[in-house]
Amino acid sequence: MNKIKPRILSGFMELLPEQQVAMTKIMDIIKKNYELFGFSPLDTPVIELSETLLAKAGGETEKQIYRFNKGDNDLSLRFDLTVPLSRYVAMHQNDVVFPFKRYQIGKVYRGERPQKGRFREFYQCDIDIIGNGELDINYDAEIPSIICNVLKDLGINDFTIKINNRKLLKGFFEYLNVEEKSVDILRIVDKILKVGEEEIFKELLDLNIEKSIVEKILNFIKIDENNSEIIQVLKNLNITNESFIIGISELEQVLNGIKCYGVSDSNFKIDLTIARGLDYYTGTIYETNLNKYPEVGSICSGGRYDNLSSYYTDKNFPGVGISIGLTRLFDQLVSRNLIQYKCNSFIKALIIPVSENEKDFALQVINMLRNNNIASDICLGNNKIKNKMNYANKIGVKFIAMIGEEEKLNNFITLKNMETGEQNKIEFDGIVDFLNNSYKEEKIINLD
Amino acid sequence: MNKIKPRILSGFMELLPEQQVAMTKIMDIIKKNYELFGFSPLDTPVIELSETLLAKAGGETEKQIYRFNKGDNDLSLRFDLTVPLSRYVAMHQNDVVFPFKRYQIGKVYRGERPQKGRFREFYQCDIDIIGNGELDINYDAEIPSIICNVLKDLGINDFTIKINNRKLLKGFFEYLNVEEKSVDILRIVDKILKVGEEEIFKELLDLNIEKSIVEKILNFIKIDENNSEIIQVLKNLNITNESFIIGISELEQVLNGIKCYGVSDSNFKIDLTIARGLDYYTGTIYETNLNKYPEVGSICSGGRYDNLSSYYTDKNFPGVGISIGLTRLFDQLVSRNLIQYKCNSFIKALIIPVSENEKDFALQVINMLRNNNIASDICLGNNKIKNKMNYANKIGVKFIAMIGEEEKLNNFITLKNMETGEQNKIEFDGIVDFLNNSYKEEKIINLD
Repeated sequence: MNKIKPRILSGFMELLPEQQVAMTKIMDIIKKNYELFGFSPLDTPVIELSETLLAKAGGETEKQIYRFNKGDNDLSLRFDLTVPLSRYVAMHQNDVVFPFKRYQIGKVYRGERPQKGRFREFYQCDIDIIGNGELDINYDAEIPSIICNVLKDLGINDFTIKINNRKLLKGFFEYLNVEEKSVDILRIVDKILKVGEEEIFKELLDLNIEKSIVEKILNFIKIDENNSEIIQVLKNLNITNESFIIGISELEQVLNGIKCYGVSDSNFKIDLTIARGLDYYTGTIYETNLNKYPEVGSICSGGRYDNLSSYYTDKNFPGVGISIGLTRLFDQLVSRNLIQYKCNSFIKALIIPVSENEKDFALQVINMLRNNNIASDICLGNNKIKNKMNYANKIGVKFIAMIGEEEKLNNFITLKNMETGEQNKIEFDGIVDFLNNSYKEEKIINLD
Repeated sequence: MNKIKPRILSGFMELLPEQQVAMTKIMDIIKKNYELFGFSPLDTPVIELSETLLAKAGGETEKQIYRFNKGDNDLSLRFDLTVPLSRYVAMHQNDVVFPFKRYQIGKVYRGERPQKGRFREFYQCDIDIIGNGELDINYDAEIPSIICNVLKDLGINDFTIKINNRKLLKGFFEYLNVEEKSVDILRIVDKILKVGEEEIFKELLDLNIEKSIVEKILNFIKIDENNSEIIQVLKNLNITNESFIIGISELEQVLNGIKCYGVSDSNFKIDLTIARGLDYYTGTIYETNLNKYPEVGSICSGGRYDNLSSYYTDKNFPGVGISIGLTRLFDQLVSRNLIQYKCNSFIKALIIPVSENEKDFALQVINMLRNNNIASDICLGNNKIKNKMNYANKIGVKFIAMIGEEEKLNNFITLKNMETGEQNKIEFDGIVDFLNNSYKEEKIINLD
């Protein structure tokens, strides 16, 4: 028979078990924290009608989409989780309880030209809080507290959630009479970290903005003090534009709120340079950077929007949300060797019967461990002990117990710690406690 | 602006939050148990090259597949998780450690004609154990013990894992000299529970099998004693066909093995009528039925196969696996009202500050709960108390704490159990213990 070469498409991430265990643990931690903060799970179809998904798209997105016909239907694969959410809220507005806090962790698809660090299938881990008609500004403060919990739980401590406000920017541009160019200005300003101040200056001049105005814009976005000082500097500008004044007030409320959620001062700060590309945002905006690895870019971004579902309904659903681009983040961490790999699976112990004679006793041990929720495994089959040890070494399990005649006869096991080489004889009844006490879950990511 | 009607395709499951919480809990329990038994996670792309996925397909599967072009690539959405596994093992055979125990929980796609209970996008929850060249028969006994754990953990106790062996059937048909019709016979025999003995009799005669042989086949599959008696009856047939003899021996080893894993006698039995449609299986086969709801059909099926990756490699990878068709199972349980719904989210308590004055204290409470891994939420905003209570009722949370002036002043909260109406005043420092002690996770499914 002719064999088909086993391969996958470029731009699709597929991991070996060791890496997949780390990825799964990361996803579990994100999920757990989203649930801890009261978000409901949501699971929408990967395939939707093109009409639904493309209601809002256009430009780049439309070119990238996976679109095809099946029967009479014009179908597309979702390219983000926000459009499905906006469709869901419009569709189920009478069944959902507002404020509707939902999380969704799922794959989305963009047929981009493949290049390093870009994926065509990737996980987004989204949270959004949706109001019916209105949504309190305090929810804008809850979002960073969740992200902070997620990142610390993963082992990432040295990060900054950068916060800005679109109303503030809008008001400032109105005050400078350049509001009709604001989309372009935001796009340019957003790049300052990447391309530097000089380039920004040049590009803004290219928009036919007067030099004095360009200087004012640059001086504005460069305001870089601690959070309360920035608020004071902004107030001292004495700009009477309404949007600007509301922007300052919102920013101030969000900052105070974040403190109330116990987020450390070192983990969030006002950054007037962040703008977010999408015109969709209308208030608070967030980006998150790893302080030691700024070149990774924002690992978690989002913001406040006025109207989630305008393409599907006349009703008003304002919301605030944020998304972790997990596949890209994982790839960036892997390429910098920042992931802690341990075992090929989730097991804490591997039980190895020396021969068929000890299989029954080994199974008693394994049944007890599993009944006590200790993930564990047993080597079955008649392989040589050398092969079994080889297997134990390859899978990277922390504890192994070789069970021979003596163990079976005297109802104990010898647990060997494969990291330290230490061995302990433990009576049958003490195995569960021993493993529970000697196994501490370590952080998956280590940025230090 | 013209609004687009928000809708999804027929044959796609999308749940409201209350149901989605139950679905997510079920998926979490399946995942946890798969990990407990030492399976590594696997996550393959949803989109693969058509060449890869269709290596083995044909007939019905090929018609149902979602297939399309993007750029120069002929692509398809995976229609099961077995073909991607076989491609993965062939592709990564030098990096994977054998025996390779992997689980995968993911969506698969089949563009079937939509009908009640059939889905075009559905979850499969697969486990497989793959050997390199060989795989010990004892692994065939481990599979039912995992399924048993999963189902009991979900709240399903009254089920039967039915076990048969393809070598036994093959040998029996060879002995009767009807082996060239064995595929058709198996297909017919497989339907006995659905269509009854008389119909089976008729259909077998239609295959031009002699009446005396048909009677022998029926008498054979009707052997229905307890497990060890069936083995004895099979041995007493004194059939000398080699495949038949190996089949009995394998069946006997698997039965003894299952007992060693502590599975209760009431949860597994030999059933000579089960055959599994796929020609792919070569040894042990499994189906699982809910005893009180036989009409649901098998909720979990699988078996032993000789050669996982024959379309991609000359090397031999035998394995054994089983799959839970989760979307269909969930749908069947929902339609019979067998799912226990509780809350719209995972929270155990909702904190409600009576006014803005108590917000700070309410946030202290919520921070403490979340820091202690108690999923909980807080009502923000200036809604009337009536609206906040209404919200609490709608989301179905078990405990609420209304925080007013007195609570704030004296550092306590009043927790109300929304199910019993009972109220308890609890000091700030005692809240975590109180909630941990009064919240017992209940089973999600109740078949009684």
